[in-house]
Amino acid sequence: MSNTPGENFRTIWLHPDDPGVVQIIDQRRLPHRYEVVDLRTHADGAFAIREMLVRGAPLIGATAAWSIYLAALEARASGKPLDAQLESIRAAAGTLAATRPTAVNLRWGIDRMLALLTEEPDSNALIARLRAEAEAICEEDIAISRGIGEHGAEILAGIAKRKNGAPVNILTHCNAGSLAAINWGTATAPMYVARECGIPIHVWVDETRPRDQGSQLTAWELARSGIPHTVVVDNAGGHLMQHGRVDICIVGTDRTTRAGDVANKIGTYLKALAAHDNGVPFYVALPSTTIDWTITDGLHDIPIEERSAEEVTHVSGLDGDQIRKVRIVPEGSPVRNDAFDVTPARLVTGLITERGVCEASEEELAKLFPERAGAAS
Amino acid sequence: MSNTPGENFRTIWLHPDDPGVVQIIDQRRLPHRYEVVDLRTHADGAFAIREMLVRGAPLIGATAAWSIYLAALEARASGKPLDAQLESIRAAAGTLAATRPTAVNLRWGIDRMLALLTEEPDSNALIARLRAEAEAICEEDIAISRGIGEHGAEILAGIAKRKNGAPVNILTHCNAGSLAAINWGTATAPMYVARECGIPIHVWVDETRPRDQGSQLTAWELARSGIPHTVVVDNAGGHLMQHGRVDICIVGTDRTTRAGDVANKIGTYLKALAAHDNGVPFYVALPSTTIDWTITDGLHDIPIEERSAEEVTHVSGLDGDQIRKVRIVPEGSPVRNDAFDVTPARLVTGLITERGVCEASEEELAKLFPERAGAAS
Repeated sequence: MSNTPGENFRTIWLHPDDPGVVQIIDQRRLPHRYEVVDLRTHADGAFAIREMLVRGAPLIGATAAWSIYLAALEARASGKPLDAQLESIRAAAGTLAATRPTAVNLRWGIDRMLALLTEEPDSNALIARLRAEAEAICEEDIAISRGIGEHGAEILAGIAKRKNGAPVNILTHCNAGSLAAINWGTATAPMYVARECGIPIHVWVDETRPRDQGSQLTAWELARSGIPHTVVVDNAGGHLMQHGRVDICIVGTDRTTRAGDVANKIGTYLKALAAHDNGVPFYVALPSTTIDWTITDGLHDIPIEERSAEEVTHVSGLDGDQIRKVRIVPEGSPVRNDAFDVTPARLVTGLITERGVCEASEEELAKLFPERAGAAS
Repeated sequence: MSNTPGENFRTIWLHPDDPGVVQIIDQRRLPHRYEVVDLRTHADGAFAIREMLVRGAPLIGATAAWSIYLAALEARASGKPLDAQLESIRAAAGTLAATRPTAVNLRWGIDRMLALLTEEPDSNALIARLRAEAEAICEEDIAISRGIGEHGAEILAGIAKRKNGAPVNILTHCNAGSLAAINWGTATAPMYVARECGIPIHVWVDETRPRDQGSQLTAWELARSGIPHTVVVDNAGGHLMQHGRVDICIVGTDRTTRAGDVANKIGTYLKALAAHDNGVPFYVALPSTTIDWTITDGLHDIPIEERSAEEVTHVSGLDGDQIRKVRIVPEGSPVRNDAFDVTPARLVTGLITERGVCEASEEELAKLFPERAGAAS
């Protein structure tokens, strides 16, 4: 796995020459350093999740799954009987589950792997099965992203046609990119598919304060993939839309209600308002796993995480070759740091899912996912 | 002039014990350092304007005026005849005018001082006259800010009454503060007057990327004056309004059309949209000198300055005791940096001027300033 610049790239993969090593990108060092890290034990995997070398719900789940596979390799190497091996794998699962206790996909990835522990007669067969399952988890996530990408690219193709081949200007916020998933990402997936299909695009990348996932991760991804883009501060989107410089907004979501309200990175709501005021279509790209079928009103039902003040008061960047953290807010000034906001469905033009595009409404979502909408109601 | 913390403060003043020295705050060092700089020659004044030790239209004008006074002191010290002294003062004016050629108040402050050059029989009388004029320029600006403050504080008093004494939560963007003027500022003036009157307030300070005038200047001002405040990223305002945490927005303006459209720091429009969507009153505080009576449609008639990419790609802050600049956007990603956006009058609840508060409309503005509206039409 080379992750050649100019090509698409994955965020986690088995070493091509050594099935005892899982490789990831150390995302803490991006965009200033691209460093591939070898995970050789489940403890390496737990460290990578806890210390945020990997982030993004799908990638956390996949890293946990691969870490269970590594735990099985460790168990086999111990030479103990199979029962004792299974016991040590389960202990590893406990360690992994404790790394980021609120991440839903973490628990889900671990449980899916643990379910296989009783099915195999010997450790070699078990390891083959665990490896296949971790690969399946990754491939399924890639297929979901790919589906979102293809449905989203159709929208972009329609705009490109109306613009007679002039580049489609897309505005995005935060990083709902490859780096948050296994490949393709969610909001970025239509951009990557558009590139493959020869649809000309240009992406306005919101910086996304306070953690700067836009300028630190999305810009890095797009630059690496050769997609034309421009970084702007979070304040700029409204002005760009007023002057006709944005054809479409595409963002991700952390949680979507059954009515189509979306909770996404703080500031998304402001861009949705500007899009609405200027007649710019505003789309949200999502794997259907982010839909919470048990809630309807996002503003009242989605709790918003308040995060550390240091994310606002300090910024990391390059000073020559050194990565340094500097304080930008004076010590005497308190700070508040809400991580997400809710964009009501009325401001969302459409939801781009792996099954297709639909209106952000309870009725249309239920038509696309009848089995899940029905089960929850 | 002590500028004691907890008191209001001025941005430019004549040294209390030495009439040969004008003092300013080196605003480049804020919020990390509070350093008073002595201006002893017109060249010192020109340096302060060019290198942005002072910024903000009223303060630039006042610094230029005081620099003409310093030029007259230099001319007298030369011992040359009065004619030659006047000649050297005019040469100094040329140097000053070239420092920031687009600043309207700079030219205006210089011209007002130069108009006095022919009126006095000797250099002592001339110097006394120039000193009085520079003082008058400052005092007039302070009176304008004070008027804005008093009219704005009445609005805050009304909200405080409805809230039964709970603090009025004000959101502001950028720095339309004391630091941009001589004292009180424009958007901040109602806050300072409210504090005097015992109206309880709390201010949400937008960070204001890319130059961070909110966290670097407004937060510093408010902390120094003992006004409760909280710094938030520019992305946060909409979320705060959705949750009832903002009672009123007050911002400044760089240029206002006769119809009440306002051009202010980029991102102002997004906050106005959020205020409108959540029924939060959105006020713009302005000295009537910012009204451009020759234009109506802000979106089409106000040119928007595009500034250096480095303001976006790099951030300055404290690393221990050192002020360091770090790169936060990867080298391979282009950047666009528009400095202002236009908020249409339809999103503005009211304009707070030195003559009172009015609706953001051509009719209401003309009622408040009939002599100017009439002269321009």
